[in-house]
Amino acid sequence: MKKPIIDLNADVGEGFGPYTIGSDKELLQHITSANIACGFHAGDASTMRKTLEMAAEQGVAVGAHPGYPDRLHFGRVVLPFAVDELVDLILYQVGALQGLAASAGLTLQHVKLHGALYHVTASDRKLSEAFLDAIVRLDNPLVIVGPPDSILQQEAEDRGLDYAPEGFVDRGYSDEGKLIPRGRPHSLLTDASAAAEQAVELARDRRVKTVSGKKLDMKVMTLCVHGDTPHAPEIAARVKGALEAARIGVQPIRKMFE
Amino acid sequence: MKKPIIDLNADVGEGFGPYTIGSDKELLQHITSANIACGFHAGDASTMRKTLEMAAEQGVAVGAHPGYPDRLHFGRVVLPFAVDELVDLILYQVGALQGLAASAGLTLQHVKLHGALYHVTASDRKLSEAFLDAIVRLDNPLVIVGPPDSILQQEAEDRGLDYAPEGFVDRGYSDEGKLIPRGRPHSLLTDASAAAEQAVELARDRRVKTVSGKKLDMKVMTLCVHGDTPHAPEIAARVKGALEAARIGVQPIRKMFE
Amino acid sequence: MKKPIIDLNADVGEGFGPYTIGSDKELLQHITSANIACGFHAGDASTMRKTLEMAAEQGVAVGAHPGYPDRLHFGRVVLPFAVDELVDLILYQVGALQGLAASAGLTLQHVKLHGALYHVTASDRKLSEAFLDAIVRLDNPLVIVGPPDSILQQEAEDRGLDYAPEGFVDRGYSDEGKLIPRGRPHSLLTDASAAAEQAVELARDRRVKTVSGKKLDMKVMTLCVHGDTPHAPEIAARVKGALEAARIGVQPIRKMFE
Amino acid sequence: MKKPIIDLNADVGEGFGPYTIGSDKELLQHITSANIACGFHAGDASTMRKTLEMAAEQGVAVGAHPGYPDRLHFGRVVLPFAVDELVDLILYQVGALQGLAASAGLTLQHVKLHGALYHVTASDRKLSEAFLDAIVRLDNPLVIVGPPDSILQQEAEDRGLDYAPEGFVDRGYSDEGKLIPRGRPHSLLTDASAAAEQAVELARDRRVKTVSGKKLDMKVMTLCVHGDTPHAPEIAARVKGALEAARIGVQPIRKMFE
Repeated sequence: MKKPIIDLNADVGEGFGPYTIGSDKELLQHITSANIACGFHAGDASTMRKTLEMAAEQGVAVGAHPGYPDRLHFGRVVLPFAVDELVDLILYQVGALQGLAASAGLTLQHVKLHGALYHVTASDRKLSEAFLDAIVRLDNPLVIVGPPDSILQQEAEDRGLDYAPEGFVDRGYSDEGKLIPRGRPHSLLTDASAAAEQAVELARDRRVKTVSGKKLDMKVMTLCVHGDTPHAPEIAARVKGALEAARIGVQPIRKMFE
Repeated sequence: MKKPIIDLNADVGEGFGPYTIGSDKELLQHITSANIACGFHAGDASTMRKTLEMAAEQGVAVGAHPGYPDRLHFGRVVLPFAVDELVDLILYQVGALQGLAASAGLTLQHVKLHGALYHVTASDRKLSEAFLDAIVRLDNPLVIVGPPDSILQQEAEDRGLDYAPEGFVDRGYSDEGKLIPRGRPHSLLTDASAAAEQAVELARDRRVKTVSGKKLDMKVMTLCVHGDTPHAPEIAARVKGALEAARIGVQPIRKMFE
Repeated sequence: MKKPIIDLNADVGEGFGPYTIGSDKELLQHITSANIACGFHAGDASTMRKTLEMAAEQGVAVGAHPGYPDRLHFGRVVLPFAVDELVDLILYQVGALQGLAASAGLTLQHVKLHGALYHVTASDRKLSEAFLDAIVRLDNPLVIVGPPDSILQQEAEDRGLDYAPEGFVDRGYSDEGKLIPRGRPHSLLTDASAAAEQAVELARDRRVKTVSGKKLDMKVMTLCVHGDTPHAPEIAARVKGALEAARIGVQPIRKMFE
Repeated sequence: MKKPIIDLNADVGEGFGPYTIGSDKELLQHITSANIACGFHAGDASTMRKTLEMAAEQGVAVGAHPGYPDRLHFGRVVLPFAVDELVDLILYQVGALQGLAASAGLTLQHVKLHGALYHVTASDRKLSEAFLDAIVRLDNPLVIVGPPDSILQQEAEDRGLDYAPEGFVDRGYSDEGKLIPRGRPHSLLTDASAAAEQAVELARDRRVKTVSGKKLDMKVMTLCVHGDTPHAPEIAARVKGALEAARIGVQPIRKMFE
């Protein structure tokens, strides 16, 4: 029987000028794919370059993490812009990171939308279509990371694109398989052992325990640890340790499509 | 005897949101290379995409026109940032435009720095070196456009890079072959016939008449018409007409390096 | 019988750095109250100061015109931010203009919200309340300009605040007395004589002809001419001329509350 | 003999959207005057309002802390803008804070420029003059905080303005009485007892020990503790304790001018 494998991703490079969020250097030691903020909801050119270099040092695959142009709300508020404009903003951000990556000798592995843009796109057919049709024309083929069982996943698979459905190790799930919105009770799992348990269940059993205690089928290829969760590096280390203890291979997404 | 050839370039895509500068659509009918603002001193993602599409419709080659992150001064003030940071800001902008270009099926031909960054880089050895060493690692090889007889030209040629020295058809030159700074007398040639005359002299005779009336040798491969000069499209049309009347071939830079 | 009086207002100072919108200098010759953009949807500190000075030269009363922090969409898109935050953003902008005005020896007469924020606030009770409760505590009492028969008007009058309901001379009205949204047919009256006619009817007869031709009662104290409408200064001149020909007094809002 | 008195100030409100710097709540317990960032080098409207509220709760006097419009470098890089423009940017920021303060029932006590703008202004006569001539026309008279023995101090005193010369408890001084630039050795005193000692010497003996060990006369009315120094609240507490132990009165600047 084939050994199960999973990717472990985290949002990094979320600082800006004098500001930092999270402990990227520590976090990068425990993950296999890094989602790098692209200067709109967080990050800036120099932070991006330094984050790319840190990821490369740790052998972590790099991807673009574009968001709404809204630093004040960290990309977590839905901005009702037109589909065309959103796609332009995404291409701009992905391209900017690709420019910095190329100059550092790196190639982007994936793209994962950030925050409100992640959720809005995944459940909007027109935006999913426009996003995918634009991304597919970039010079480097990118794996699309997004929620499982979403319109975005359908559209990506219809186009024959590499799509990696994603689970969250440190977020609570509703009985419908949706993330509990931030700010609501049970939205965050701050306990490292609960996160590790959820990670193993998602990776090995391909299901998740919902808030009500129900077990829900959920097929994911990558697991997200949030960099801005308190003690993110410890959670990531614990999750990775638990996955390895359960004999699950932890490796970058790209390898699963080769 | 070989027919002389020259490229005709202009800065375009300098609008921002509701604002426009110049008449890009008209201007693009008369030039062969377009320098597209990249969202820092001017431009935004959607303006960039639309400008790329307009250029493609007219068969105009496209290039990146990165500048200081300073919309208020249109990139015309020297911002004393560190070399590393400036290179990061340039790569970010070039990459962003490349992302939008790739999605539109286009490839960038060149990079030309904007405003104060153009002048600062061309005469600073460390910045020239860092800029070129970064640009050369991008996925697509780009022609570097900059002033003739500059440190930037030396460094580009030392590296074996394609460098296109540039003359200005609508700017006055000092006896030292430098542009008269904006705001000073004779800095701008607003008369179309004077611009056309300067263009032909630069393209055919490889020299320019300075403010004092002196003739100065100047070897250039591309001529810039400013998009924000009043009546820019008329000047560009007049310049192109005069070049063609003088039997000078007008074509994109890239071809001269093939 | 008392001579009818009306204020004529326009949005000015909508440039940004190298960009300009409209012909403020000409427009200011024909209006009595200027709504000055405050640097979030348009304008910047120096543009604000110069606009204050130009208004003062023409004897035009000045007011704050705060909008959403969104230059790309000129404040015309609804950004779903929290009430508290919107009030903070408004106070920031009004205060900034007041600082520049005080330094120029001027006092603000009024505040009129801009674009999407104007419409959202006028029809949202919580936002109307929070906005008014904050504005009333500023050092200088400001007249509130907003739509007639709105929640904002009710709340302002409940608080005993000076409220100036506003009509638009160059916008079409629905049968419900609402503006036809921009982009829809009949949303803009670009014909100067139609605008002049609508102005006189609003000022003298206190009613407006709707898109369907119906006459609707509408009590307004100020009339807005848009600065970004093509030929805005001509429309303003025509409107003012028509009001004066109809023996309607044209004067700043503040005087009507004295 | 009269008991010596001194003000203790700190830079606060330096967060931005999701980002925070320093521990304002703790720091405010130990100071008498708060310099609040105004949204250009740091801070935003809501952060400013919350910081004003926190200061008011602790009975701390509030002042404006305007800086260059450059979040990336936290206002620490000199931006070579024109005098007029810098004054416009300062008035904009001071006014914005005043608007938020007025709405919270507070009046600004002082203005202290931030970072590079603090140093540039204090040693430039034209900028000092223009800054003071503009500030004096604001609705509320503000104490000007700046370096001792500076052009700014001369110009303020020539105009009969309240000027509070400032010393730094946690920065090293050269033999010329200038701050050792950040990044150089001895620029920061991170040891709380060294800071406390320097504070007492400045407040009681009106002199400071320079890097070379020399004692230099220095007349200051306010002492700055940096909020972004590691352990800023502890240093502030230690400084305040040492001042009180030395029987020096610690109170807001304004009182010294009454």
